[in-house]
Amino acid sequence: MAITYELIKRCSQTGARVGKLYTPHGVFDTPIFMPVGTQATVKSMSPRELKDMGTGIILSNTYHLYLRPGHQLIAEAGGLHTFMHWDGGILTDSGGFQVFSLGPLRKITEDGVTFRSHIDGSKHFLSPEKATEVQMALGADIIMAFDECVPYPADYEYARLSTARTSRWAERCKAAHTRKDQGLFGIVQGGMHKDLRRISVSDLVSLDFPGYAIGGLSVGEPKPLMYEMLAYTVPLLPEKKPRYLMGVGTPDCLVEGVMYGIDMFDCVFPTRVARNGTVMTSRGRLVVKNAEYARDFQPIDPDCGCYTCRNFTRAYIRHLLKAEEIFGLRLTTIHNLYFLLSFMKNMRKAILEDKFLAFREEFWSHYRRQ
Amino acid sequence: MAITYELIKRCSQTGARVGKLYTPHGVFDTPIFMPVGTQATVKSMSPRELKDMGTGIILSNTYHLYLRPGHQLIAEAGGLHTFMHWDGGILTDSGGFQVFSLGPLRKITEDGVTFRSHIDGSKHFLSPEKATEVQMALGADIIMAFDECVPYPADYEYARLSTARTSRWAERCKAAHTRKDQGLFGIVQGGMHKDLRRISVSDLVSLDFPGYAIGGLSVGEPKPLMYEMLAYTVPLLPEKKPRYLMGVGTPDCLVEGVMYGIDMFDCVFPTRVARNGTVMTSRGRLVVKNAEYARDFQPIDPDCGCYTCRNFTRAYIRHLLKAEEIFGLRLTTIHNLYFLLSFMKNMRKAILEDKFLAFREEFWSHYRRQ
Ligand SMILES: [Zn+2]
Ligand SMILES: [Zn+2]
Repeated sequence: MAITYELIKRCSQTGARVGKLYTPHGVFDTPIFMPVGTQATVKSMSPRELKDMGTGIILSNTYHLYLRPGHQLIAEAGGLHTFMHWDGGILTDSGGFQVFSLGPLRKITEDGVTFRSHIDGSKHFLSPEKATEVQMALGADIIMAFDECVPYPADYEYARLSTARTSRWAERCKAAHTRKDQGLFGIVQGGMHKDLRRISVSDLVSLDFPGYAIGGLSVGEPKPLMYEMLAYTVPLLPEKKPRYLMGVGTPDCLVEGVMYGIDMFDCVFPTRVARNGTVMTSRGRLVVKNAEYARDFQPIDPDCGCYTCRNFTRAYIRHLLKAEEIFGLRLTTIHNLYFLLSFMKNMRKAILEDKFLAFREEFWSHYRRQ
Repeated sequence: MAITYELIKRCSQTGARVGKLYTPHGVFDTPIFMPVGTQATVKSMSPRELKDMGTGIILSNTYHLYLRPGHQLIAEAGGLHTFMHWDGGILTDSGGFQVFSLGPLRKITEDGVTFRSHIDGSKHFLSPEKATEVQMALGADIIMAFDECVPYPADYEYARLSTARTSRWAERCKAAHTRKDQGLFGIVQGGMHKDLRRISVSDLVSLDFPGYAIGGLSVGEPKPLMYEMLAYTVPLLPEKKPRYLMGVGTPDCLVEGVMYGIDMFDCVFPTRVARNGTVMTSRGRLVVKNAEYARDFQPIDPDCGCYTCRNFTRAYIRHLLKAEEIFGLRLTTIHNLYFLLSFMKNMRKAILEDKFLAFREEFWSHYRRQ
């Protein structure tokens, strides 16, 4: 098996756990946050900078790479790791989420999805087989089954039919997947309906994937509802397999996700808000672009050990952002990623010391909810 | 004296020379190329990356920093070195070039120039005294006298009056300059008129500056005319002072400038074209964004030792640029700056070995003129 999971420590009071994720490109401590590198680059960052701050595994998007530069080109380059000069872990999504988001530009059948490129309008077809073929060409360590992310809100009947199709598609993905050096994860759907979540888990677990994602959350529903679905769904999953909550990356959701037993997260949030001048700190967000920081000569976060906070002031970063200088968003991106990676590290430490509940309490007592 | 120059080696066949420039922030081998960091950042680069590739001294623009974030703010931050976290050398221009380029937005009198900000239209006044005050607040190692860059073409009478005023302004700058830890350079003007160049040199040399710039070249005139003016003007300057040719940074002009005895250069060219996907090589320019490089899996320049060429392919860089990813222009910028810094290093070596003419011949035999 290309991907295996080792459970190291279970929290005695919550579902939180620490483990190790073994991949062909390294062993990573979980719970882990995966920075997003949509187009074969984590926006504004170099692979060296990612490595320096302790990034283990990143996510890249099949839909984008399939359209540009094309999966065959990346295969010719020697695969995605070689193409982007990243020797750590890579996970690719299936492209399903992006294709289904295209709205009127796409048409769904049992066979797959016909869609038009958002770049040039050209017509394409993605199916479980095709998405798997593309991901095999890209050569990530972990690839995802082609699914439909049930939108929110969705009525019961839509969610039921969609979830059943996702199960059939997962089976087709598994049949199409032949690369032994990568692991294919199934994606649990079911919308906000517990019985559908249970059926989805049961369908996927019968296919025995090396890991399971929980999809269809963080899609616009209230956070308490997401937490409720997590509390219900995660315990249904096999304990010896990694669990991946897709598209979640704000500190509050990471704490709660970890508490329910999630091992892997990804989100564009930290990098996207960084480019708008918003930085994350242990006390909540700070909009460093704001006028109040014009003459603030302290670092973004005096407690942070990142390259940005060790060397640059809020005043300088604000100046760069106001002047639309690239180095400004490099600095905020570095800080935000470093912040989240440290945050995950601190959570792992708390779990190992069996102090996770205290960590969570401390977190919520300081975090300004936004 | 904050700035001194030591002449190390004179070429036996041309005016080329190797020297050392002593500044409060380091000693730099000349001839040297200074990357441009207009808004307190060399576009897309970190100070660490600049240092890693051997950058000694950078240029920053007084006009831009005066308007945003303001020289007082930078003084409060501890000066420009501290503000931008750059402990190498810095040279600031006087702002004259930018202000005079504003066209209808500015009004010139003997006292100075009234102009409107290109950012918000607010009204400002720059004079020799004010430009010097601003540059003292910024605290660069080398600052420039406030001058008018005579446009090309300019009739004799305009050039004569403008050049005479630049001399009077240089005297006022010198009187206003009180910081002992920075050197003030005079700027030779005179348009394309040799007798005016001679008068300008004579006026400025009588003020005994620690260095002299040659302004008013590379402003649209044919290159042979620029070379003719250099051949005439440089020998008029004192041998024991550094000579700076403003706004020049293409390899062909660097070779010729060095041949005529120039010690310092700056130009936005390498960083600006990098952001458009054009890279410099010893064989001339290469537009890495072009379709022909889509499947080209070799580095930009197989002989180059920069971070970009050691780790990334033309195909990957092209993909990043087509996808408008910031990391693409980081990579091309790194290469172009490294290329020019290496190019200067090779010229210094050739001069030290008294092989500069052979170097120049070799260069021209390969370089595609563009
Ligand atoms: Zn930081
Ligand atoms: Zn290079």
